[in-house]
This record gives sequence, C-alpha cells and structure tokens, in this order.
Amino acid sequence: MPTHTYETAPPLDVLLIPGGRGSRGSNTPIPEAIAFIKTTYPNLRYLITVCTGAGLAARAGVLDGRRATTNKMAFRDMVALRPEVEWVPRARWVVDGNVWTSSGVSAGMDVTLAWIGEVFGREKADGIADWIEYTRHEDASVDPFAELYGL
Amino acid sequence: MPTHTYETAPPLDVLLIPGGRGSRGSNTPIPEAIAFIKTTYPNLRYLITVCTGAGLAARAGVLDGRRATTNKMAFRDMVALRPEVEWVPRARWVVDGNVWTSSGVSAGMDVTLAWIGEVFGREKADGIADWIEYTRHEDASVDPFAELYGL
Repeated sequence: MPTHTYETAPPLDVLLIPGGRGSRGSNTPIPEAIAFIKTTYPNLRYLITVCTGAGLAARAGVLDGRRATTNKMAFRDMVALRPEVEWVPRARWVVDGNVWTSSGVSAGMDVTLAWIGEVFGREKADGIADWIEYTRHEDASVDPFAELYGL
Repeated sequence: MPTHTYETAPPLDVLLIPGGRGSRGSNTPIPEAIAFIKTTYPNLRYLITVCTGAGLAARAGVLDGRRATTNKMAFRDMVALRPEVEWVPRARWVVDGNVWTSSGVSAGMDVTLAWIGEVFGREKADGIADWIEYTRHEDASVDPFAELYGL
C-alpha cells in the first residue's frame, strides 16, 4: 500500500525508480513521475534506478551526460529515447557520481546491495544478502545478458 | 495496491504465500490469513510458499505430513512451531504433491520459475528469467544457506 502521493511525499535522501509499464520506450510514460524526478533530483543524496526505470530518469533529463545502464532487452529503445545519456551496454550496474543505474529487474537487487555496502558497510550488505538467501553479483562489469541480447 | 480482501477474493487456482512480518514464529501471526489458507487450500491446484510464508501454511495445518522447507535463519522456529510437518533443512525448494515450498526470500524466484517450467514449459520459464535478467538456481537440492545457518 503506497503511503504517499507525489504531492505529499516528504523530502527524500534516496529515490529508487523501478521499471515496468509506463517507463518503457514503447509505452506511454507517466508524466507525473517524470515531473517528480525532475523536481526531486537536485536535493537527493542518491538516485537509484532499476531496469527501465532509467527511462523515466532519462526523460527527466537527470541522466544527460552521465554513464548509465538499463534493461538489456530494452536497451536500444532507451538509447533512441535519450541519446544524451552515455548508455553503457555491458554492465550489471553503473555508478556515476550519486547516480546508480542497474540492468534488468533482478539487477536491482545487486545494485541495491552494492549501494548498501557503500553507504552502510560491507558487513551490512552481506548480512542482508544472507538473510534473504541471495547469492549476489558483486562485480558490476559481469553481464551475461548484454551478450544474450547482442549488445 | 491490493485488489481484493480475504472476503472478496475470487476462486483461486494458485495461492502464493509470502513471508515477512506476521508469518514468523516469534511474531504474532495473522489469524485472517491462516483462516483464508485453511478454507482455500482444498480447492487450489497449487500452493506455493516463500520464506516464512510456510509458517502461515503450517499454522493452517495444510503442510502436516508433507515435506516442506522455509527460511534457514528461521528454520528452528518453524520446526518448533509445527513439528507435524516434515521440514527439510537442506533445500532451495521442496515439491510435495501440489505444494511447492521455498527457502528464504530470494528462493521464491527460483521456486516460481521452477513451477512455471513445470506448468507452462521450460521455454516459458527461461524466457522470463532472461527478461528479468535473473540467473536462476535450477537444482532444488543446492542450498548454501543451510550450511551457513548450521542446519
């Protein structure tokens, strides 16, 4: 159950943008989400995107001139959508300044754990991974799906 | 956003029970959820549990006499909670008849993909895994977390 709307959201330190319907190049985007990202971004400490959530951030213009990645099946759509972004085809996730962008869906777990490791320490990230019984990918450059989709 | 309550839920073919607060041995369980599982189970084609969701199914009595698994950090609590279940300490997931139970949190992805493979075919399961960029565990018996938690 969502606890806030775009209008009632408190000041944020971290914004995590998921992908899915409304974020894809070929679908109608969500104008309210894009406007929210645009106004919120300057005050964020960190921006994290998962999968095609990068497409919303790209539309908001906050990835322009930055290195970023996204879902590999949708990669070409994303490049066409916003060529001002330095899209990285082969990466599980990419860090550029305070912006952490990840590849398709499940890469969101790896980028989030990597971010937790950076901000709260490796022990915390390892503890969460063990608790959720997740064998995480720790090397951001290893990306078997780039090859699968011919990137 | 939930679309139904326990009272308005339509007839179900498949019930997937997640874990978390309200399902743990040491937390207060959710009586409405347990009652719902008890009345719904006889008409299900499949029951799937993730993590400590098995604790809710166990409390509903539907796992009695069956082989089942659950989160490994909470394993001992679960055994104490319902010793009538044949709890399996070393398994990513367990299939017993139409009941598919999985280990902690992320094992829910593996059991769901295995179930999709069984019901809809391997190609469908592989396609979804590739789409969500998930390298899935396909061997239900491989469980590094059982050892981690001394089971």
